[in-house]
Amino acid sequence: MPRLNQIILPLVSITVLILTTSTSVAAVDSETNFIFNTVLFYLGGILVMWMAAGFTMLETGLVRAKNSSMMCLTNVGLFSITGLMFWVLGYDMIYGIEKGGYIHVPNFLWSASDPEVFIGNGQYAAASDWFFQMAFVAATASIVSGTVAERIKFWGFMIFVVFLVGIIYPILASWVWGGGWLRELGFSDFAGSSLVHSVGGWAALTGAIILGARKGKYGKQGQVNPMPGSNLPLATLGTFILWMGWFGFNGASQLSLGTGSDAIALATIVINSNMAAVAGALTSMLVMQAVYKKIDLTMVLNGALAGLVAITAEPLRATVHEAMAIGAIGALIVIYLVPLLDRFKIDDVVGAIPVHLGAGLWGTLCVAWTNESATLVGQLIGMFAIATFVLIASTMVWLGIKYTFGLRVTEEEEYLGLDRSYLGVESYPEFGQGTQRLK
Amino acid sequence: MPRLNQIILPLVSITVLILTTSTSVAAVDSETNFIFNTVLFYLGGILVMWMAAGFTMLETGLVRAKNSSMMCLTNVGLFSITGLMFWVLGYDMIYGIEKGGYIHVPNFLWSASDPEVFIGNGQYAAASDWFFQMAFVAATASIVSGTVAERIKFWGFMIFVVFLVGIIYPILASWVWGGGWLRELGFSDFAGSSLVHSVGGWAALTGAIILGARKGKYGKQGQVNPMPGSNLPLATLGTFILWMGWFGFNGASQLSLGTGSDAIALATIVINSNMAAVAGALTSMLVMQAVYKKIDLTMVLNGALAGLVAITAEPLRATVHEAMAIGAIGALIVIYLVPLLDRFKIDDVVGAIPVHLGAGLWGTLCVAWTNESATLVGQLIGMFAIATFVLIASTMVWLGIKYTFGLRVTEEEEYLGLDRSYLGVESYPEFGQGTQRLK
Amino acid sequence: MPRLNQIILPLVSITVLILTTSTSVAAVDSETNFIFNTVLFYLGGILVMWMAAGFTMLETGLVRAKNSSMMCLTNVGLFSITGLMFWVLGYDMIYGIEKGGYIHVPNFLWSASDPEVFIGNGQYAAASDWFFQMAFVAATASIVSGTVAERIKFWGFMIFVVFLVGIIYPILASWVWGGGWLRELGFSDFAGSSLVHSVGGWAALTGAIILGARKGKYGKQGQVNPMPGSNLPLATLGTFILWMGWFGFNGASQLSLGTGSDAIALATIVINSNMAAVAGALTSMLVMQAVYKKIDLTMVLNGALAGLVAITAEPLRATVHEAMAIGAIGALIVIYLVPLLDRFKIDDVVGAIPVHLGAGLWGTLCVAWTNESATLVGQLIGMFAIATFVLIASTMVWLGIKYTFGLRVTEEEEYLGLDRSYLGVESYPEFGQGTQRLK
Repeated sequence: MPRLNQIILPLVSITVLILTTSTSVAAVDSETNFIFNTVLFYLGGILVMWMAAGFTMLETGLVRAKNSSMMCLTNVGLFSITGLMFWVLGYDMIYGIEKGGYIHVPNFLWSASDPEVFIGNGQYAAASDWFFQMAFVAATASIVSGTVAERIKFWGFMIFVVFLVGIIYPILASWVWGGGWLRELGFSDFAGSSLVHSVGGWAALTGAIILGARKGKYGKQGQVNPMPGSNLPLATLGTFILWMGWFGFNGASQLSLGTGSDAIALATIVINSNMAAVAGALTSMLVMQAVYKKIDLTMVLNGALAGLVAITAEPLRATVHEAMAIGAIGALIVIYLVPLLDRFKIDDVVGAIPVHLGAGLWGTLCVAWTNESATLVGQLIGMFAIATFVLIASTMVWLGIKYTFGLRVTEEEEYLGLDRSYLGVESYPEFGQGTQRLK
Repeated sequence: MPRLNQIILPLVSITVLILTTSTSVAAVDSETNFIFNTVLFYLGGILVMWMAAGFTMLETGLVRAKNSSMMCLTNVGLFSITGLMFWVLGYDMIYGIEKGGYIHVPNFLWSASDPEVFIGNGQYAAASDWFFQMAFVAATASIVSGTVAERIKFWGFMIFVVFLVGIIYPILASWVWGGGWLRELGFSDFAGSSLVHSVGGWAALTGAIILGARKGKYGKQGQVNPMPGSNLPLATLGTFILWMGWFGFNGASQLSLGTGSDAIALATIVINSNMAAVAGALTSMLVMQAVYKKIDLTMVLNGALAGLVAITAEPLRATVHEAMAIGAIGALIVIYLVPLLDRFKIDDVVGAIPVHLGAGLWGTLCVAWTNESATLVGQLIGMFAIATFVLIASTMVWLGIKYTFGLRVTEEEEYLGLDRSYLGVESYPEFGQGTQRLK
Repeated sequence: MPRLNQIILPLVSITVLILTTSTSVAAVDSETNFIFNTVLFYLGGILVMWMAAGFTMLETGLVRAKNSSMMCLTNVGLFSITGLMFWVLGYDMIYGIEKGGYIHVPNFLWSASDPEVFIGNGQYAAASDWFFQMAFVAATASIVSGTVAERIKFWGFMIFVVFLVGIIYPILASWVWGGGWLRELGFSDFAGSSLVHSVGGWAALTGAIILGARKGKYGKQGQVNPMPGSNLPLATLGTFILWMGWFGFNGASQLSLGTGSDAIALATIVINSNMAAVAGALTSMLVMQAVYKKIDLTMVLNGALAGLVAITAEPLRATVHEAMAIGAIGALIVIYLVPLLDRFKIDDVVGAIPVHLGAGLWGTLCVAWTNESATLVGQLIGMFAIATFVLIASTMVWLGIKYTFGLRVTEEEEYLGLDRSYLGVESYPEFGQGTQRLK
């Protein structure tokens, strides 16, 4: 079967050519182009910012009631710190890098000294791009927050976020999206299966190992004690928010909307993203039914998300059938990885590592299959380079915090719950003592 | 009073004419037109997809806690199956039909064999239209899920969804929106009061009858035992999401945004939709207060939704005052139908039949009043044809499932709740034993 | 440091000039301009309408469970009444005023008699502007609803809303946005720190004083008894919704999107709004930690909102650093005002007065700093005039309702909760008797 896009792209070119020549005003003028591109970033930025709410609801629904407000505060905090750090350092570190470069020492306080950058290159308002990219970074931090929940110190985690969003992520993003050495080498990651999701996943993995598991999660005889989420409808809402937001996350990563080809690309990305999620959710449902006879809702939600994570590396050039295959296998990886992490006593509260690291790496690999300009070797080098950098850098930061400020709450605080210990509130003060309360 | 739009439309034409002639570049060029249309579908698709979350929250808030996760899973499942089936069959069945035709045998796997269809007809990216229309279909299935909740087998319902979204809906939609025989006959349904809402409502009605009521809902002495929803704020959130999503549902049903007239139409649709919801909500509030002295929140939420459902058949050509009258009467119909269903022991868990079938039929009728090109006879024929087809087809499917796979859970499973029986989880494991728990 | 925009605006002009002259079709044509402007209002209207859901979730999360459904109903009701009254009176009162005027007697039922107004002035579809402005008014009423919650009669409050959104707000908005005397005098309020937020805040303040505090809130020995919110994750969701919606609230207040300069303005507004919220949230977190050793989640949410409220008066011309300073100080004002209100036994259930009045006044003042065409005297006169008018008018309306229909529920109704007393429902009937239930 010929690749769909091998046929589409030439056809589009021809169409556009016909449109252009058939009348003297058939094509988009440069100012209209500027507006369309800016609107795309505006919409994309809002949708990706909304994903912060999605992560918050998903994670809050999956932790126990006694830590729910802390989960909320953590997400508000990380989104705020991301805004600050991306302003102070991040954006210029990513986009100021030299072609093929390794690191760019930023001008602090983006744009304050260089207003032209604020206007952009004449293709879009740079401020709209800033907003969109900033919301992206926040997603990376949100991934980590779910894994290390219920036992990490609030300020310890906030310090980690400062380094993750202010330094680690910008350096890595500059290597690819900024035009650095990995881009030169041919590594391709359209909207961040690696740069956003695997980076968050690697950082979460190191954090979970260094922090250790929640008290009581793993018994002495090796049994795994389930600590069920306190509000599954909230977790479902969070998943829908994320699913919705992904249409901006992947869609606006097209980075332009000023031509008919861009519009077709946007629509293609949306279909592929949706169908990868669909395949992920359905795969989870069927496999859970077949293997376990019960369909764990959380696993289905994570299956849909795994599909979305996996397609993120190349949502444009994949055919719909490829997108569905990629999403389905992403979900299978999650089903396989969740118990595997438990076997190693790595306590990932919300399943973020399987979803964002497992499916993220899988999706990055698949680019070699769906995008002809990518190679398996190029993808592997990129994945390896990113993994190495994040593993080393985040381990250093986690350990640095651990041996100075401290990373883990006391046993008593953990038992009481972080809401009472740190915030002085109860999340649901009137909702009684259920069967699982204070477990 | 002259109809508003009788004045507006000529005025718009004149305005556009003036704009066009006053300068040589006053009109939208064809590529810009293409982008605007695609953006409309992109926005509309996202908003209607978001309605899937709205239905989920509404329904989850209105079922009991012990079935809440199942309600969430059901909605994730039906949205996923819709995506799959609309890809495999649905879209091509609707839009591939011959003018005036009755049924179109589709090319399986839309667009895989015909990439031009993916680009569209030069007016918009077909993939964006696909996405928008797909989300529409999911709404139809969501309507059914609320009515049959709390006692239907998960996989039994999923099988029903396969037929509903893969065959029943596409055939009906092809009759009108695809240009089939009902369109030729003059039947008009702008955004689906009949095609989406009454179809969902009829399917829900047959399902509720064939399934039977929840155990204990109707006592032996004929009394109706209330089974109150477990989370009314969540139901309210769901209603707001649906209200919001309707601006895309009705708005993007204009199907184009490439001219000034389209933009005026979009804005008119938004106002009319909002004011119909406003009238529905206010009518519910006032009538509940006057008649019952208590304002049941659920009834007000359903009143707003009934207004939205009713205006959906013609949100463009109605004046605002007509829209408000249509919405208000839609809400009255709901208030009247809810106890009527109980009298017949038809157990509609969330009130979807009154809202989507009752107000949907009412709205479809009103088109004869608000749209001069529609006739009462034409509307009635369409309503009758659609009802007949859905009633027969969905009854066959429901019965087919019932006598093969099975449709209803066991009494014990129903008592324990579907969350524990089928998913192995509790939705709110820590929230204690309230006054209504395990009733 | 030169003001950023002093540099940007000329640069933009030059850029646009170059674009325009470099090719004969470089600029946006008039019909495309019309569509872009209408799309901006469409998007902005949807986002601000969505803020109604945000207020609902925030307020519902912050009241006790026994009043949660009433909180939901109140917000659905006020949004509906706003739609109705803005149609009957409001819009024409605002925009029909004479230049420099004080009041405009409206044509009842906007546009019914004047369809040209429906099309607009050739710059955008007036119906889209109507929708956007209507949603704005609803925010004003939502602010009040949170303060007076848990003890006000439903219909008493609805009557107040009729006057607030139908008369008080439109007169004030006509003074500034309609081109009335305050605009002539130089008072500047870009998106409503004063007109929306302080107006809501003043009305809430008079309401709280006239209603009195909830029973048991203030003890006889002067102690303040905390009445914690019943669902903090819901309140967090509401805050995220508001934060998201603000990108439409402030963004679409640019009122046009048909030029490159508009697009740059939109993006600038988005950045400034976000960074003000970021600064507000971070300031709250740090100050709460430093002063109280516990980080009250509610205070952080209100801190973010205070930042947003404060920047709303001038989100365009402020530099990012100014926006952050304005947001941070807005949050400090909230931290200071919350206990101050308690000292005066003014019972503001959700903290709306500190956030919307305190930060709103602060933001209005700051315009004199960030917008060169505004003066401190002009801002003070505007603030004083608005305060005087709202204080007198809302006091009259509150007292009028109090001495006729009645404003406050009975002690028994308050004890039982408004859900049971007025709606005949429980919000969460299954969630047990928690530590705080029926307190």
